[in-house]
Amino acid sequence: MLKDILENYENYQPGLSIDCVIFGFHDNQLKVLLIKIPHRETWSLPGGFIPVNQDIDVAAVTVLNERTGVDGIFLRQFATFGKVKRNDQHFSKEALEYLEIFEEKAKWLTRRFVTIGYYALVDFLKTIPKPANKDEIIEWIDHKEVPELILDHKEILGKALATLRMELNLMPVGYNLLPEKFTIPELQKLYETILDKKLDRRNFLRKITNIGILTKLDEKKSNVAHKAPNLYTFDKDKYKEVLKNGLNQGW
Amino acid sequence: MLKDILENYENYQPGLSIDCVIFGFHDNQLKVLLIKIPHRETWSLPGGFIPVNQDIDVAAVTVLNERTGVDGIFLRQFATFGKVKRNDQHFSKEALEYLEIFEEKAKWLTRRFVTIGYYALVDFLKTIPKPANKDEIIEWIDHKEVPELILDHKEILGKALATLRMELNLMPVGYNLLPEKFTIPELQKLYETILDKKLDRRNFLRKITNIGILTKLDEKKSNVAHKAPNLYTFDKDKYKEVLKNGLNQGW
Repeated sequence: MLKDILENYENYQPGLSIDCVIFGFHDNQLKVLLIKIPHRETWSLPGGFIPVNQDIDVAAVTVLNERTGVDGIFLRQFATFGKVKRNDQHFSKEALEYLEIFEEKAKWLTRRFVTIGYYALVDFLKTIPKPANKDEIIEWIDHKEVPELILDHKEILGKALATLRMELNLMPVGYNLLPEKFTIPELQKLYETILDKKLDRRNFLRKITNIGILTKLDEKKSNVAHKAPNLYTFDKDKYKEVLKNGLNQGW
Repeated sequence: MLKDILENYENYQPGLSIDCVIFGFHDNQLKVLLIKIPHRETWSLPGGFIPVNQDIDVAAVTVLNERTGVDGIFLRQFATFGKVKRNDQHFSKEALEYLEIFEEKAKWLTRRFVTIGYYALVDFLKTIPKPANKDEIIEWIDHKEVPELILDHKEILGKALATLRMELNLMPVGYNLLPEKFTIPELQKLYETILDKKLDRRNFLRKITNIGILTKLDEKKSNVAHKAPNLYTFDKDKYKEVLKNGLNQGW
C-alpha cells in the first residue's frame, strides 16, 4: 500500500501524516490497537498519509480504515507532533533499497514529517481489526505492556492517554464500553483502569451520581455470592446532554 | 518577509503553517492580537511558516516573534486545521502578479496548507507588539469586536477561545493578568470576561477559595466609597503546584 501511495505521491500532502491511537476497554484492561508491518521488528500506531483532496478529519478516518479495516469511529484530534528529527532515522538506505524505493519517491518518503494525532475510545468487542495485507499483524495490546514502538509513537501514545485522562474531568465515559446493565463497581473499575489509580468507593459513588446520567434499575446482579450489587444503566438522553455541555464542574 | 521566505522556500515545510492566537486581558476586556498586512482589507492572526530545521513548538515562537516582535511567551498548541479548501482562494492571480510571485514560488504558496494553532494568554501591559515592517498594523482588538478575518482564522480564534474556557476548569488563571494585589470581584471579573457570562458571587468565592491558591492580605482596597473589599495575592508556590497537577476536581 505504501507502494501505491508512492506511485502517486503528488496526490498526498508532503511531510504530513496522521497517526491514530485507538483505545479499547476489555477484561479490566485499557488496550491499544497496534500494527507490526513486514520487515520491521517494532510495532507502530496505525497511521498514513493525507490525500490532498481530503479534509484532515476525513483523512484520519480513511487512514484508520485502510490500515485496520476499522470503520465508523469518531476520531478526535488531540495534538500534532513535529520535532525536527522525529523520522530522520526511519528508513535506512538499505530498507529503501529492499523496498525498491528510489529517487523522488525516496526523497518524498524520507523528508521531515509532521504527524497529526487522533484518538478514540471504542467498544472493544465491536471493533474487530482486519489487516490490510497478510504480512501485517494487528493486535490489541494492554497499554501497560506496550513494547518498543517506531519513531515517537510512544510519546504520541502517552499524550493520547493523558488527553483521555483529562477528558474524564470534562465528559462522561462508559457508554458503549460497558454492558447495557452494569454495577457501580464495574463503572468504577473502568475509571480506575483509565486513570491507573484506585478511587475511593464513596467518593466515586457520590460524584458519578451527581452527574445525573445513571438510572438505577429494579434489579440486582445475579450470580454474586454475597450481597448482590444494584444494576444501573445510562440515561441516554442525559448522557448525551452532558457530553454536549460538559460535566458541570465549571464556574 | 514573505519574499525572503519564498526565495528559500525549500527551507520550509511545504503546505504547513502556524497561526497564533494571543489573548490579553485589559480594562475588563479579553483582547486578541491581530495583524493587517499591506494590500489586504481583512485582518489575520499572526502566522507564518515552519523552517525545516525547527521543531514546530520552536517555530511557533519564532513566527510570533517575527510577525509581532513579541517574545518570551509560552505558546500552547491547541488544534490543527486542515480543511481542503481553507486557503484555495487566498492568493488571487492578480495578487500574485502584484506581489511578483511566479512559477515555482507561486505554486508553493498557493498549494493546500494545513495550519497548526497555538495560543497564549499574556500580560497585556507587558506585551507590546512591534510590526515587522512599516506597512503592517498590529492591534489588540476586543474579542467581541473582531472584524472579518482571512481564511478560517475566525474558526481558529473560536477554537482557541473554547480551549481557553475549557482550561479554566483544569487550571488556575490570573497570575500575570491581574495586579500583584487584587480583590475577589476583580478576579471574578477576569473569569466572567473569559467565560462571557455572569457568575454567582458566593459560588465563585467558595470555588476559588477551595483551590487554595489565594492569600488573604491584611489590607483593604483604598479609594472605595462603600465597604472596602479585602485584598488578595496569589500564593505563587501553591499556584505553580496546582498548574502542574490540575485543579482538584478530578476523580
